[in-house]
Parts: sequence; structure tokens; C-alpha cells
Amino acid sequence: MDDSTIGSRMFKLAEELFPVCRSITGDGTRDTLKRFQKEVPEITIHEVPCGTKVFDWVIPKEWKIEEAYIENSAGQRIIDFEENNLHVVGYSTPIDEIMPLKELDKHLYSLPEHPDWIPYVTSYYKERWGFCMSHKQRLALKEDQYHAVIKSKLFQGSLTYAELLIPGKTEKEIFLSTYVCHPSMANNELSGPVVQLELAKWLLQNKDRKYSYRLIWIPETIGSITYLSKNLAHMKKNIIAGYNITCVGDDRAVSYVSSRMKHTLADIAAKNVLHFMAPDYIEYDFLHRGSDERQYNAPGVDLPVCSICRSKYHEYPEYHTSADNMSLISPAGLEKAYDIYREIINSLEYNAKYKINCYCEPQLGPRGLYPTESFNRSSMAVQDMMNFIAYADGTLDLFEISKIINVPVNDLHHIAVKLKEAGLFSEVE
Amino acid sequence: MDDSTIGSRMFKLAEELFPVCRSITGDGTRDTLKRFQKEVPEITIHEVPCGTKVFDWVIPKEWKIEEAYIENSAGQRIIDFEENNLHVVGYSTPIDEIMPLKELDKHLYSLPEHPDWIPYVTSYYKERWGFCMSHKQRLALKEDQYHAVIKSKLFQGSLTYAELLIPGKTEKEIFLSTYVCHPSMANNELSGPVVQLELAKWLLQNKDRKYSYRLIWIPETIGSITYLSKNLAHMKKNIIAGYNITCVGDDRAVSYVSSRMKHTLADIAAKNVLHFMAPDYIEYDFLHRGSDERQYNAPGVDLPVCSICRSKYHEYPEYHTSADNMSLISPAGLEKAYDIYREIINSLEYNAKYKINCYCEPQLGPRGLYPTESFNRSSMAVQDMMNFIAYADGTLDLFEISKIINVPVNDLHHIAVKLKEAGLFSEVE
Amino acid sequence: MDDSTIGSRMFKLAEELFPVCRSITGDGTRDTLKRFQKEVPEITIHEVPCGTKVFDWVIPKEWKIEEAYIENSAGQRIIDFEENNLHVVGYSTPIDEIMPLKELDKHLYSLPEHPDWIPYVTSYYKERWGFCMSHKQRLALKEDQYHAVIKSKLFQGSLTYAELLIPGKTEKEIFLSTYVCHPSMANNELSGPVVQLELAKWLLQNKDRKYSYRLIWIPETIGSITYLSKNLAHMKKNIIAGYNITCVGDDRAVSYVSSRMKHTLADIAAKNVLHFMAPDYIEYDFLHRGSDERQYNAPGVDLPVCSICRSKYHEYPEYHTSADNMSLISPAGLEKAYDIYREIINSLEYNAKYKINCYCEPQLGPRGLYPTESFNRSSMAVQDMMNFIAYADGTLDLFEISKIINVPVNDLHHIAVKLKEAGLFSEVE
Repeated sequence: MDDSTIGSRMFKLAEELFPVCRSITGDGTRDTLKRFQKEVPEITIHEVPCGTKVFDWVIPKEWKIEEAYIENSAGQRIIDFEENNLHVVGYSTPIDEIMPLKELDKHLYSLPEHPDWIPYVTSYYKERWGFCMSHKQRLALKEDQYHAVIKSKLFQGSLTYAELLIPGKTEKEIFLSTYVCHPSMANNELSGPVVQLELAKWLLQNKDRKYSYRLIWIPETIGSITYLSKNLAHMKKNIIAGYNITCVGDDRAVSYVSSRMKHTLADIAAKNVLHFMAPDYIEYDFLHRGSDERQYNAPGVDLPVCSICRSKYHEYPEYHTSADNMSLISPAGLEKAYDIYREIINSLEYNAKYKINCYCEPQLGPRGLYPTESFNRSSMAVQDMMNFIAYADGTLDLFEISKIINVPVNDLHHIAVKLKEAGLFSEVE
Repeated sequence: MDDSTIGSRMFKLAEELFPVCRSITGDGTRDTLKRFQKEVPEITIHEVPCGTKVFDWVIPKEWKIEEAYIENSAGQRIIDFEENNLHVVGYSTPIDEIMPLKELDKHLYSLPEHPDWIPYVTSYYKERWGFCMSHKQRLALKEDQYHAVIKSKLFQGSLTYAELLIPGKTEKEIFLSTYVCHPSMANNELSGPVVQLELAKWLLQNKDRKYSYRLIWIPETIGSITYLSKNLAHMKKNIIAGYNITCVGDDRAVSYVSSRMKHTLADIAAKNVLHFMAPDYIEYDFLHRGSDERQYNAPGVDLPVCSICRSKYHEYPEYHTSADNMSLISPAGLEKAYDIYREIINSLEYNAKYKINCYCEPQLGPRGLYPTESFNRSSMAVQDMMNFIAYADGTLDLFEISKIINVPVNDLHHIAVKLKEAGLFSEVE
Repeated sequence: MDDSTIGSRMFKLAEELFPVCRSITGDGTRDTLKRFQKEVPEITIHEVPCGTKVFDWVIPKEWKIEEAYIENSAGQRIIDFEENNLHVVGYSTPIDEIMPLKELDKHLYSLPEHPDWIPYVTSYYKERWGFCMSHKQRLALKEDQYHAVIKSKLFQGSLTYAELLIPGKTEKEIFLSTYVCHPSMANNELSGPVVQLELAKWLLQNKDRKYSYRLIWIPETIGSITYLSKNLAHMKKNIIAGYNITCVGDDRAVSYVSSRMKHTLADIAAKNVLHFMAPDYIEYDFLHRGSDERQYNAPGVDLPVCSICRSKYHEYPEYHTSADNMSLISPAGLEKAYDIYREIINSLEYNAKYKINCYCEPQLGPRGLYPTESFNRSSMAVQDMMNFIAYADGTLDLFEISKIINVPVNDLHHIAVKLKEAGLFSEVE
């Protein structure tokens, strides 16, 4: 694979990390975060002890798994954690028992509607054990004595997450969050962490940012709750827009999940950019939320956080199965998501209010900004500029003007720079 | 007819009262109200003397009619008030004269577009006399000398109305109004009074009401004006929602007539309940008003009153004719209207604002409120509860949350009770 | 042509003025304005010296042209300004040179998509010269030596405009603006000036106006900027609604161009009247502006000015070509525009807030305002009056009530007069 594009770089890192067995705690997640830190040394990794009270929750025990398999009476391993880490229910307690099929079956999970796929199942908050397999394989199981082995343990370790803070000219922050807690799945979830990692690199390269940036890689739900429990006051004070980056790897759709409030700056910027970059995007109401925006938007938390996905969690058939693998995502899929988020960040950085410095339309001709000869519709050439001027009353920001005159914020920014140079525009506030 | 259902009970009472000749004053109306009082002794009956000034109006004379008929020269009664009280124009002055067809015809009313039906005609505020008949019969009238007899009188009696006040925990009131002033017609009007009577019984049985209730049975227009002229200040202070109950007997449609302000609590509750119980309901703007909501919504009166009908006055062909008879309405038609109004009252009683007591989503599992094992979309089972929690910010009431998450207020109430018991919800205010 | 209608009077004056070579300055424009003054002596004509600074602009030199033509080597005039003043690029500098076709061609303008029409071209702010011709003629030009002659001059004269101020009972003003700067074209532009002239006559005849009126005939863009630079403070203080009258001569469409703010009183009145008088009118957003409303709506100027056209500039094929001639417009086309503007002005004059003086519906019968006998839907006859009463709460003005009950402001005014006479209505404020 070509390594020269951002898309292929992201894909390659996802490929490397795909086999790792991640969960909401444990070494799989820890190692993944350390790999990111190798790419971006500014990232810091935090450990929060198990048992810590975080709002209404308590951080559960850390889970460690060495091996897991089922053997039939002939000693053949019919499924093995080594082959696919989805075979074991996440957070399974240890087991080492021989039992008849009837007993084993109570601990098996499969998908009748997708008989070739292994489902992804977890049981974080109730201790149990189980195995997942394709429905085809399950149906083929014969009456037999099976040896079920899970060499795991639950212990007082810690929950791990990574954080990157990039200071800007103001304390106001843009917030990016993605989660690292799923085993071998690609769109949900490796796509999110690798896209956010590339955004981190790009942000670090650009020293001239207006806003500060807060990027976190956390386990889903318990991780965002943990992070909020430590940073809520600061986040409520400073965050002007945030995005939960998840399911950004395939190339079938572009989706937007609104914040609870629907019209926050995060939503405005997201919809504005999508209107130009992915006009056919699918809009999901907050009722279709399902990831960490649930916590960021909770009553009392009230952060302006929405989400842009490619094919959104819950909405594609391979979701939470073994079919959500590396063949589902692509460099192009990842890169388009990356480009959209970058454009959103640029739009937020560029957003401002401008006021024209004279009454009536200015005379653009002598300033070299207007064709001097009126021939039918020649004025169309500078239409965007004239429309911008017509609305530059100091009360409308670039997102509002963009919506009215249908010109991207990025283009408006460049027109504004020209008009400021010509002495015709002033920035307001 | 089966007497065991509320619908059949209402139908039976309407059947009993159908033959009575009601008008805006007089014994027909008085007797009807007394019959209701027999069912619900808490009802009080009021008499207001004729000539009383009520806002811009004066209560007209009381009308009494003994008999009325037209005889041809052969002495045959061609129409007779005894057979159908619609044959006489309401408030007809007395007459006892022999006249040729040409003269009589000036006093006849019929419906060419419905040749078999007798129209319903009144002349309350200008003294005149007249007879109504089917157009078929009118066309068959021959040249002859006709004897027109109406033994009626207009005298200084009184206007009669009934009132039921049910105190609640607060002085804030829910207001129900229906009218009793039409002779033998069923959808418009006996349906309204009998449905309201059953609602009265149901309200009296439930001692634990938050709101006080004000129910009135009045003659239309002059009755509501009279009632308002005596109670306006109190009503403006206390009524939070009111409904004019009319045309609630047939089973062809469910209709809603908005208040003038369109978005009062009465409208919100009505539309919320109809969305779930009668999603195909017809919505009529206040421009299609035509009953006592005209007075309740008048400028300066400004009460939050709207209306839910089955087939609405003016909108069904039998309206104000002899075809609006007992065969037009049904126990099922009446009972559905009763059920809708009862659900509206329950929703108003249940409506409240709730606030979640913790930051982020609460941990429902240990409280037995959430499935502990995550397997694909298992979270769908508690979706309504999770959605409710996501919007329980203390600013939205149950009607608003119901609209956002598409769950009936009644269901939300039961979820809120559970979450209050679990210590997770507090009621606000 | 019949001279007895307003439409034919306007058409005749346009016909008379059609051949005059107008521009943003010069005698053609001056003479046209003097001709208007002959019709309405109250009009005053203003001269503003060239070189005057007007906001961001400077009034350019005055342009004078005596003759212009191109001769081929055989001495034949192949195009001549005498035949059609569109043949010369407006504001052409003088030239008197013999040149080959290749050189001449750099100064020629034609329309390949309309090969029979001469385009209209100007170059006000950059000195150049040029000729316009039909594309058919241009294609037929042979290699030859051509003699290009333009006897014109640019000199320190003045810019001319006309103004008519009509005082009313209040200082609040209604503003009408039209432009006079185009040579031989009919819809754009002679239609505007002649319609506004008839409105001026009509306004002067009616002495009982609530509002003052400000009517101006100016060169487009530089004229409105000049006028604003002299009158802005006064206009901002007093103008409640204004209209830019242009392209009001043909009979193919009725168009409305909104103000920048979209919902000013000018827009409200325009849309209200169009809803009743031209329900199929085309609505153009302010993005489709293109005339002096650009200046009136500029940020900081902020006047409530919109526009009603017949076929709008930019939107009809003949726009800015020789095909926009007298055959394109008609007395009927002009008169409908005149009627619409007159109705708008009447609606603005009539607009007020009314409050009913009693609680509940008033008793209209005894006042002779209501049918006394109720027979089916007889109340429909007074429906407009009853609906008006139902909304006469003192907070809604006639435009708002008109929109709700779908009755023209003019009709509401006449109902209000009746109800005031009956003592039932009071005007609020």
C-alpha cells in the first residue's frame, strides 16, 4: 500500500493495531495508547485506579486475558481466542470446565441473521463468562462433552486514557474525543483513534491557532464519564465546540449526529462544512446517539458536542461483528473523514464578524477588485464578494453569512483578508 | 343495548333525552339539566333572569311552546311539532291564521340539496315565526288555504345553566364546557352533554387530583357570555386549560379546533394526546371555530380553550338537520371521545418537570433498571427511559419531552415515578 | 392609442422619451427629468458637481456625445449612433481613427446567443471606447479599413437628479425611488420613471395622507449613493417603507425582490398586496438584487426598501439589449404595476391596530351588522367581520390580521370604520 497519503498512513496504523484485544481496561488498550504516544510524544497517558467513584459510576476491575478456547472430547479446539479475540465475551470471568453441549450452549452467542459472522459481546458490570461464534458453527455443534477454558482475571488495576492539550491564543477550546476499548473491529473503532491522531499531528504543525485544543482517547462511556468527573468545570467554561470521532473509516456514507441542543456552534460548523463537502450526508437526530456524546450532552454536563461519522454505529449491518474488519474501511474513507474534520476546525478558526467601513457599496474598480466594464452579467464574477459585503453588518458571523450566500467559510475568510487589506473591512469584537 | 360499557351508558342517556325540545331557554333545557343533576347530584342549576345585561348582550325572553302544526283546508295536519320538534323555527312567535300557500311559503324553510331532511332554524333575536320541512314535502304542497298554528309564548322568565365545581389540591383549574340548547339532534348536541357528564363522574371518583375542575352545561353563545360575565375574573386567574366539548358522538373522524393563540397548554395537551390516540385527526384552525370557544377566546377574555370533536359542526352533511339523529352516533363514537378527554386530563395532571440528580448517564444496571449484558442492540429495551433521562434537564415539561422522544405523557409519568423511587429524578418547582 | 387610461398615458410618455440618449450624467438625463417636471411642477431638479466625493465614490465626469459611426473603406456607415444609441458603449471616449478589422474588433461587442439584438454596454469608471452591434452584422464584417468616429467628451459638469417631497400629517415617510440613466430601453428603464410619475400625481391629489412621501428619479448606483450621502440621517430617521421601482412595464410576470432584512414593513406590505393582487408573483431573495436596493439596504444604511417589478432585470432575455424596446411593454403592463404600488401605499396608510371595546363577541344584530335569523351557514355572510373582531386584541396590526384571516387590508380598513362608528372598535396607540 502506498504510504504517501494521509489516508494510507492512517489505514496502515489501523492495520497494525487491528489484532490487539482492547477493552475498557487492560493492556490491549494501554498498548494501543502507547503506540499513539510514539507517533505523537506530546500525548500523555493517565491511569485511574479501579474502584474510583466517577459520578454515578465506579471504575470496574481491570480485565486481563491470556488464552481462551473450547475443546471437544476429541481434544480439538473448536474455537480459540488466538484466532479472533471476538470469540470471548469481553470481561469474561475465568472458567476451566468440561460440560455437555446443553450446558455450554447457555454461554454461547451467535447471530442467526448473519450466520457467518461472530458477534461482539461484553459484560462489563455483571460477572459472567461466554463465547461468541458464527451461527453456522454453532448449528454444527454435536452432542459432546466440551472443555471450556478462559484464563482471565479481574483485578484492582486501573483504567487508562490518553490526553493531548494544545494551547492556543485563547483559553477557549475545541474538543475532540474518540474511544479505544474495542477488540478487533475496524470502522467501530480503530478508524476514530487513527483519524484523531492525524488531526493531532496537523494541529501541532500549525502554531498560529486561535483556539486551544483538547484531544482525548478514552474507553467509551466509563472513560468519558471518568474524564468528565475530573475536568467538567474547566470543560464547561472553555469548550466552544466538540466532536466525538467514531466510525470514520468506511466509504459508504457521511453521517452527522446532532448535539442534544441541536444548534450549538459544533452543530453549525459541522452542518456548514457538510453542506459543501458532503451535501448528501445523512442527518441523525440526537435520539440516534449512541456513543460518548451521550455523556457530553447529558443534562448538567451540557457540552456542545456532536459527531460526524462515515457509516454510523447501529446503522450498518457489520456493526459489532467480525465483519467490521479491515476490508470494510479504506484509506479514502478515512481521509475524507479527516478532511471534513480539518475543514470544520479551519472554519471554527476563521469564523469572525466583519463590518464594512463605508456606507453603500464600496467602489471596487479602482482597487482592482471589480471588472471596470459593464457588459450584461459581468458582475457575476465578483458575486461572492459583493454578497459578502452586502451582509457584512458586523452582526453576522461567517457561518451565518455562508448559509445566506452559499459560500464556504474558508472562501469567505480569504475574501475578508483581501477586503481588510483594502481597508474596507474591519473585524468586530 | 349492552349497558355495561361507558359508551352504551352515554348512548342510552342521549336516547332518553333526544325527544326533548331544548332551546337557549325554557323547560326543555331545564328538564335536561335536572336529569343530569339526578345522575350527579353535585351539579348545581342556576337561573339568570331574562333582561339581564351580559357584556354586550341582554338575555332574551324565555320561550315556551305547547303545540304547533299546519293543517290544509281538508283539516289534515301536514306537519306537526309533535312528530319532530325541528318542524318549528326555534323562538317562533305565536300564530293562528289561515292563509294561501303563497303567504305560508314565506315562513317555510327546507333544504333543496337534502330533500328528505328537515333543517334546524332559529330566530332568537328577531321576533318571527316559521316552519321547517323536508324539501320533498314542500314541493308537493298544493295551492290551498293552510291553517298555521303555533301556540308559543315569549315571556320574562330566565336562562338556565348547570355548573359543577370540583376542588383540587391547587386553585388552578381545568375547565370543561358543553352546551344544551338544541332540540332533537344527536351529534350536535346531545353527545357533548353526556360525555361531559361521564367525565364528571370519573373526576368525582378520583379524589387525588392536582387541579380543580369547573364543568358547565350552558346554552350556546348567550350561555357562555352569561357565564363569563359572572365569572370572568376568577376564570382568567385560575384556568390553565379548557375544552369546549361538542359533536363527540359519531365515529367517522376525530377533529381538533385550535384556540386563538394556537399554542396554549390546552392545545399542547390536546395535540399530544391525539398524536398517540388518533394520529389521523383533522386539525382545524381557529378560523373554523363556531361554538363557545368563540367567547372563551375573545380578545380580553383570552382563556386557553380549544376543542376536540368527532365529526365537527359545519363539516358533516347532517349538521343542523333532522338527519343528525341517534343513528348518526354510537356508543363507540361517544366512548372514544370520552377516552381522549380523560387521557388529556390525566396528561395535564401528570405534567411536570424533572431533573436528573447526577452528571452523565446514571448506572441503571445495579438498580435493576438496565440489562447487564451488551449484545448488539439490547439497549433498545430501555430506550424510552434513556431518552427521557437524556432530556431531563429540569427545563422541559413532560409534553415537551413527549414530543421530542415520541412517548406518551402517561408512560413518561410512570418512568418518572420509577426514577424518583431510585433517587435519580427530582421534580422541579 | 387611447389616452383615457392611466396605462396609456404612461405608455405615451415612455414612447416620447424612448429615443433620448440617457446616461448616468448628461443632457439626455437632464432633459428627461425636465420633461417630468413639466408634468409635475412640484418636482425639483438638483445638480451635483462632478468630482464630488460621495461616500466611497467620486461623481465621474459628465459625458456628452454628438455623433458616432463606423464607416467602411467605401465610405458607407455600417453602424450609426443616430439609428440606435445602443450602438455606442456608454461613456465612450472620443475616437477618430482608421484601422483594420482586427484592430476594430477589439472594440466591438455583440451577443452570439441573440444574433439580432444589440447589447447595451457601458464603461463609466474606466476610460475606453467601443461599439455594439448585432452578432449577425459583426459576423458579416469583411477585412477592410474602418473609420471609427465617436464625437464625445468627458468634462467637469454635474450629475442630475429629481426629487419630490410631499409632506403628510407625520414626519414618517414612504420612499419611492426609480432611476433615469439608460438610453433607448423600455422595461428597464422607462417604465419605472413613468409609473413613479403617475404615483406622484395621484399622491398630490390626495391631501389627507398620514405619511410624508419622498420620491426620487436618479441615475442608478452613483445617483442613489449621491442622494444617500446628502440625506442619510434624515432618511434613516423617517422612512418606514420604501420601494425601488424598476422594470414595471411588461405584462409577463409580477416579481418581488426582498429587502436584506426580509421582514421590514416594506416587505410585509408588498407581500400582503401581492398575495391578493398577483398571487402567482415570483419571489426573489435579496441575493437576486441588482438595482438601487443594493445601496438602500447596505450595512449601516439599513433602509427598509424592497422592489416590485413585472419581469425583473436579469431575468428576461431582452434585458440590456435593443430588444427591450417599446414593443416589450404595454399600457396594461404599466397600469398593473401602478395599481399594485397604489394599493401598497393605501395599505400602509390604512394600517393600524384596533381593539374591541367589549368582552366576548358583540351583538351585531341590533346594530344592523348581522343577519338575525340562523339558517345553516348564514353566518358566513359576516365571516370577515367576525374574524376581524376575533383578532382585534389591540396587539395585531392590519397586515397581521390580513394574513391570519385572508382579507385585504383595504377591506379590513372599511370594516374597522364601520365598527368604530358603531362604538365597538377603538384604534390603539
